[in-house]
Amino acid sequence: MDQSRDTRKLAAIMVADVVGYSRMVAADESRTLAQLKAHLLGLVHPAIDRLRGRIFKTTGDGFLACFDSAIDAVECALHIQREMAHRTASDAPDQKIVFRIGINVGDVLVDGDDLQGGGVNVAARMEAQALPGGITISNTVFDHIRNRSGYAVQDMGEISVKNIPYPIRAYRVLTGHELVSSKESATQ
Amino acid sequence: MDQSRDTRKLAAIMVADVVGYSRMVAADESRTLAQLKAHLLGLVHPAIDRLRGRIFKTTGDGFLACFDSAIDAVECALHIQREMAHRTASDAPDQKIVFRIGINVGDVLVDGDDLQGGGVNVAARMEAQALPGGITISNTVFDHIRNRSGYAVQDMGEISVKNIPYPIRAYRVLTGHELVSSKESATQ
Repeated sequence: MDQSRDTRKLAAIMVADVVGYSRMVAADESRTLAQLKAHLLGLVHPAIDRLRGRIFKTTGDGFLACFDSAIDAVECALHIQREMAHRTASDAPDQKIVFRIGINVGDVLVDGDDLQGGGVNVAARMEAQALPGGITISNTVFDHIRNRSGYAVQDMGEISVKNIPYPIRAYRVLTGHELVSSKESATQ
Repeated sequence: MDQSRDTRKLAAIMVADVVGYSRMVAADESRTLAQLKAHLLGLVHPAIDRLRGRIFKTTGDGFLACFDSAIDAVECALHIQREMAHRTASDAPDQKIVFRIGINVGDVLVDGDDLQGGGVNVAARMEAQALPGGITISNTVFDHIRNRSGYAVQDMGEISVKNIPYPIRAYRVLTGHELVSSKESATQ
């Protein structure tokens, strides 16, 4: 065996970002930044801590977090999306902070506090597929929740991911608070 | 969120046992016990340590180990099976210690040093499906090695597992040292 090989670990990677963040910042930078900060400090960070997760990267409009358990990651995402719906219920539609969340279980490379590898890219791809206020997971997450009750899951079929030579099956975990147009809503 | 929920973690669970151990013990108890101990101390334990795994349960004729990485678990299993073939090459067939190894990635319950849950049962079911000297993995392991070169993998189709309401897809990771009759060998 190669003695100098990289340290790897199985982790549930959560990627989240704010829908339409650039537009909101352009319209009112200080209000948008203050609102996002308030949601991160008041809801997101405590929810991730409680489920033993850790934010390992922040982006301008979101974050990447890792969890030891896929079930914990899904529970955390559901909690965040449901609470965000309540916290922003009275905000004007064009001022509402709404997250998209994607989750993937990967066998990722541990580089100090950072995590890298294809498993992180797949999580970002799942996030891009999520509805505003929604959660999209890959099959590697679904495998660990499919035998549990209490989740409403929709099969989204297979999705291609850059640099991954096979399609990845994706699923929506329904939060009850996805923002969809009435037309989309009727067909789902 | 439920504050008192169980601690869970993603882990690659490896289950191994010795083929025909009861028969070998009945034939020569002290030799069999001494040989198994020598293989465990001389090969298995160092191999597991090197890949940051941990034996969390021992059975009379085998062990259950956990790894943080699915890739590490498969590498460890390949190393054990290939080295065992060399270590036992000159042993008489009825005195040869041969392992079956199964691996599954589960979101398992952490109970002190013990791990529990359906993910452990699936690993045991994979082990039961392995050829002597061979390795069987579930789809939740395959998902993390399929994008990597260097593995020879055979799809075994779907297998039913007690108390799991859906079939589990299983794969052989070929070691080059599986013990099969020439007839089986010819059809694979």
